Amino acid sequence: MNIKITGTGSYIPDTIEKNEDFNQHTFLNTDGTPIKNENAVIIEKFKAITGIVERRYAKDDLTASDLGFFAAEKAIANANIDREELDYIIVAHNFGDVKQNTIQSDILPCLASRVKHSLRIKNPKCVAYDILFGCPGWIEGVIQAQAFIKAGIAKKCLVIGNETLSRVVDKHDRDAMIYSDGAGATIIEATDEEGGILAHESASFTYDEAYYLFFGNSNNKDLCPDTRYIKMDGRKIYEFALNNVPNAMKACLDKSGVDIKDIKKILIHQANEKMDEAIVKRFYKLFKMDPPEGIMPMSIQNLGNSSVATVPTLFDLITHNKLENQSIAKGDVIMFASVGAGMHINAIVYKY
Amino acid sequence: MNIKITGTGSYIPDTIEKNEDFNQHTFLNTDGTPIKNENAVIIEKFKAITGIVERRYAKDDLTASDLGFFAAEKAIANANIDREELDYIIVAHNFGDVKQNTIQSDILPCLASRVKHSLRIKNPKCVAYDILFGCPGWIEGVIQAQAFIKAGIAKKCLVIGNETLSRVVDKHDRDAMIYSDGAGATIIEATDEEGGILAHESASFTYDEAYYLFFGNSNNKDLCPDTRYIKMDGRKIYEFALNNVPNAMKACLDKSGVDIKDIKKILIHQANEKMDEAIVKRFYKLFKMDPPEGIMPMSIQNLGNSSVATVPTLFDLITHNKLENQSIAKGDVIMFASVGAGMHINAIVYKY
Repeated sequence: MNIKITGTGSYIPDTIEKNEDFNQHTFLNTDGTPIKNENAVIIEKFKAITGIVERRYAKDDLTASDLGFFAAEKAIANANIDREELDYIIVAHNFGDVKQNTIQSDILPCLASRVKHSLRIKNPKCVAYDILFGCPGWIEGVIQAQAFIKAGIAKKCLVIGNETLSRVVDKHDRDAMIYSDGAGATIIEATDEEGGILAHESASFTYDEAYYLFFGNSNNKDLCPDTRYIKMDGRKIYEFALNNVPNAMKACLDKSGVDIKDIKKILIHQANEKMDEAIVKRFYKLFKMDPPEGIMPMSIQNLGNSSVATVPTLFDLITHNKLENQSIAKGDVIMFASVGAGMHINAIVYKY
Repeated sequence: MNIKITGTGSYIPDTIEKNEDFNQHTFLNTDGTPIKNENAVIIEKFKAITGIVERRYAKDDLTASDLGFFAAEKAIANANIDREELDYIIVAHNFGDVKQNTIQSDILPCLASRVKHSLRIKNPKCVAYDILFGCPGWIEGVIQAQAFIKAGIAKKCLVIGNETLSRVVDKHDRDAMIYSDGAGATIIEATDEEGGILAHESASFTYDEAYYLFFGNSNNKDLCPDTRYIKMDGRKIYEFALNNVPNAMKACLDKSGVDIKDIKKILIHQANEKMDEAIVKRFYKLFKMDPPEGIMPMSIQNLGNSSVATVPTLFDLITHNKLENQSIAKGDVIMFASVGAGMHINAIVYKY
């Protein structure tokens, strides 16, 4: 028995927020002092590091679980399965459903219940739960689906990553420009077909790192101290990721028995272009190699960082030939990898 | 190989909130109109239905994950394991960490990362994630731990249920009196010892039921419409639970192959005494029996409904001889069962 992704879908919100749309923001340092550069300079620097030119925001009347539902409908259609046969719906996110212009996360009921409700699935044996695991949540959901299939308690699972980070950003923080909204969904099935998940690796670094990404106050000290936003210590995260993600990827590859030369694509969480490039470069350095041309498809330029949604969305775009100069062919071995709040890291080696 | 609970711990907050402490509340109907009865009558009625006399609230400076950490320390000590050998930390909750007198749920990082951080566990291979599955979250976490062990990706797991419902109640809603704070933790291990988990059952009813428990506005229409609280349609939940929980429990028992007469205790989610009694009565009716005396230990009188924490706390109290006239002996077959927001239902048949 193999375990494969038999269908994918993604939802890319319509609203495009361009870098220049941040021109009117009053960016402040974390201590509340003004940033000396002009916004045009701040934005240019931001673009040079992250690669982000524009990002997507969900329409005001939609929430994260709505985006997840849209992506799920596509994945179910793509896999051509009867939705009533799903054994699990696993939804990864970080902030639940946050209504536009409000500050509360709504996670009651869990988002998986909402998605299942919207999908009009009747079968109560389809177990719907949420996983919180930072940006690597979708990959971890796939790993859990795999475990349920191996344990004999599931055959077909729907794993979704959905997020509306635009609703939790501090407008006075330059990092606000990183975050975006989106959703990706996949059907995971037990199959006799060749390929599928060859190996996986998961890790949680919490001893020193638990609060590198956190829920904190605005850089604008005049704002209510009881209102908190997504915050990160970018420098520590960069260093942490470079020191730990390549090793986790190598551990995963070693487990799979696949030769590094046979890896055709690395679909890495779209966190920050420079950081992703540095991770993949260091990964190949562990094998005394340079990264092959085109090994790391990127969508961050136009889609920003939508957390749990980036990897499944990237996979969906490439396999449906919607990303320029990128493709994955049957039999190709690829790698998924992610790092994020927790700090969690994971990876999967997958034969398409 | 069997899968057993090898250690338990619970944290019962010090602050006792008695029924008479609600005497000063202005209780309103959901439409905002005043409730005609006096508070003394409302409270007496409430006590007659739910069985609740008092409940526990966490100290102001503690959050849900703090309570979970305290319970986890006890469970680790009780199981007498090296904490660095844990493969998973699974934390179930419904609202994350909510600071006293604030309205935001803090779930970044996930609570499992916070607990692992507090436990000072260094091993990054110990994967820490949160599950959102309503009140049945702790039981579902145990089911997931079991799946990971069966799939060969774990040997020892820490499963926690922690919640501070006192932080999300609407003071103008009589249901505010139901909710309480607490945490229960358990170590789940693969073992050669006899017994352990014999069968499990999980279900998610979302077609009509997804929003029976929800995040909604105060009954006091003068309060900010953007601030939401835990809300439930008690009548629908009661009917739903009676129609579905006994069947799920029977399905679980049938899978286990255990005779109904051999069930020594049923540890059911402490939702509401009358509802729990009606569920267990109807469960036995499926076997044309009356519930045996003392089959259903209750802690709700003094601990209220602390959601994910009730079942592991009850189990911890009984197995440590801290609940009057209740005990579980080696070899006894017991059942865990829960129902809650989602609407989710689950059950485990377990040989102690």
